[in-house]
Parts: sequence; C-alpha cells; structure tokens
Amino acid sequence: MTMATVNNGVNVQALLDAREALKGAPEAAQFTWRASCKWQDGTHSTTKVGGFFGLGQEQQHKTETSFEADHPEIFASADKGITPIEYVLVGLASCLTAGIAAVAQNRGVQLNSVESQLEGKMDIRGILGMDSDVRNGYDDIKVTFKIDADAPRKEIEAIVAQSQKRSAVYDIIANPVNVSVEVV
Amino acid sequence: MTMATVNNGVNVQALLDAREALKGAPEAAQFTWRASCKWQDGTHSTTKVGGFFGLGQEQQHKTETSFEADHPEIFASADKGITPIEYVLVGLASCLTAGIAAVAQNRGVQLNSVESQLEGKMDIRGILGMDSDVRNGYDDIKVTFKIDADAPRKEIEAIVAQSQKRSAVYDIIANPVNVSVEVV
Repeated sequence: MTMATVNNGVNVQALLDAREALKGAPEAAQFTWRASCKWQDGTHSTTKVGGFFGLGQEQQHKTETSFEADHPEIFASADKGITPIEYVLVGLASCLTAGIAAVAQNRGVQLNSVESQLEGKMDIRGILGMDSDVRNGYDDIKVTFKIDADAPRKEIEAIVAQSQKRSAVYDIIANPVNVSVEVV
Repeated sequence: MTMATVNNGVNVQALLDAREALKGAPEAAQFTWRASCKWQDGTHSTTKVGGFFGLGQEQQHKTETSFEADHPEIFASADKGITPIEYVLVGLASCLTAGIAAVAQNRGVQLNSVESQLEGKMDIRGILGMDSDVRNGYDDIKVTFKIDADAPRKEIEAIVAQSQKRSAVYDIIANPVNVSVEVV
C-alpha cells in the first residue's frame, strides 16, 4: 500500500484523534491567541508572542518570539522591520502551506516541494487619507503555488482548494472579523 | 510653542509632502507588497519578505527577513515558529501602533509609551472541519492600549480612533478582501 510510505511530517492521526476528543468537549476547542506590542520610536514597534489559551488551559510556545515592524525608508521611516501589512502575507502564506501539507498527508499524497509567491495590491492614497473612496488595506491579494508532488495536477489543485477552504487566515482576510480597540 | 518640542520620531512633514506629490501622480501610489514562502516539513514553513513595488519602481527593504511558522506541540507539530494566525495579530498590533505615533505627531502630542495586548478568540472546531457553522478564523479580536502621553485621556482616545480609521491591517481584518489562490 503506497499510503504507508507517504510522509509529509504531519501527524494526521493525532488531528483525527483531537477531533474525536473535542466532540465530547467543545469548550476545549475555544482558543485565545495573544500578542503584546510595545512602541519603540517613530513607526517602529516590537511585538512578542509566547503564550496562548487552549484545550482548557494556558499553553506556551517553546520560545517567546519577538517581531519588529516599521515603515520603509521611502516613507521617511527607519525600516527596522517589515511593514504591518507584509505580516498579513506571512500569515496567509504559512496558513495555506500548513494546510496543504496536512490535507496531502490525509489523502496519501507525498509532497516534494511547496513554494508560493504572494502579492498584495494597495493604493496608499487610502492610508494617507487622500481619497475616501480608496480603502486603507489591500484591494486584492494573489497567491501562486508551485507544487511538486506525487499526484496528478488535478489532485494537487484539489488539495490546495481544500486547504483554502479550511484556512483560518484566509477566512480572516476574505471575510469580516469583529475587532474592538480600547484604551485603558 | 510646545508643538516644536514634540518628537515621536515620525517625519510627518515628509508624509504631508508625499500626499502633495501623489495628488499629481496617483499611479505612484499603487503599491504591491510581496512575500515568498517555502514549505519545510509538516506544518513548518519559512516566508521571506524583501522587495516590494511602489512610487513607480522596485523597492527593497534594508534587509530581507525570514519568518518561521508552525503549529504548536499540542497539535502534534514541532512548534518551530508561531502560528499563522498569530502573525495576523503581529500585523494588527504594529499597524495601529505606527498609526498612533504618526497621528500623535501630527496633533502635537508627545507619546511617552504605547503598549498593547491583543487577544483573538477562535473555535478550532472550524479548522478541524467538525461543524460547518463554526468559522475557521477569529470570531473576535480585542485590542487594549495602555498609553502614557502628554495629553488628556479624551485626546489620547481620539488619536487611537484616528489610527484605527486609517489602519491598513484593521481594514484587511474587519472588511472583506478579495484573495485568489492558484496553482501553476
């Protein structure tokens, strides 16, 4: 049986077991992901990600990670990190890619390589407040995958489509999310 | 005049000049932000951000930056990076924070410190495909700012509100964005 030799590094059985376990305990499926941000200077900030809540208790990543964000020099900033909207592309790329690996594993398809290019188009007259008809964020995001896998093109396309259908970040970008901002 | 002493590190004049310049050249306001992603193993991927297009030509960040993303160990993954949806929080935090610095500078308000906590709530039964009524992404994101600035609370709240109103990442999350995914 060829499926036994497929190894994309995703433990699908553990995910199927989790699904079974959560059927009897839906409250364990309620997760809270967190980040804490500190302004440095100008448009430069540092955001840390370490702990989160899930499966009914506090959880910790192996390590806390810090991320620098800034605006580029052409906006008269110091470019001490990528821009906030580029972080959105990082999230989308990694979410779809992880999903492709998981779906391929579940369908018994060996992946050899998965690469993607992302492009987000934006008219900066929006954030500059020049034209109220121009939105602040991306007008359009295009993701292009190049995949080498032991499967026909049609099956690869179906794996990508299923990953998109179950992607948390795709959902967040493509559909509205309620965001509340408050000052304490 | 007190405004002359306010320094949040944001070159507001350069932004106002850019706004003037773009009035006569709207095509220069068309930006394309990019990322390229490579699957590593399992749910682990590496995304690089370096170049982008804007002001009518190719641009480069001072350095190309790599970002690791993975799922945590409680999802039977290796936790070699933060999760894709946590990257969305990094983007939102840094976008609102940069905006606060810029708006405060423009309004002559000296910031002493700006810190924020972000929480995104998610029911993972969505991404596990357990219940079609449960969405994949965040149900709700809460951002809480703690700001020390030389201004009354009301003025600080107005600065945060203006930052939110002009935030690219807030717009991307709160409103729908068209995303196309293809395989070449």
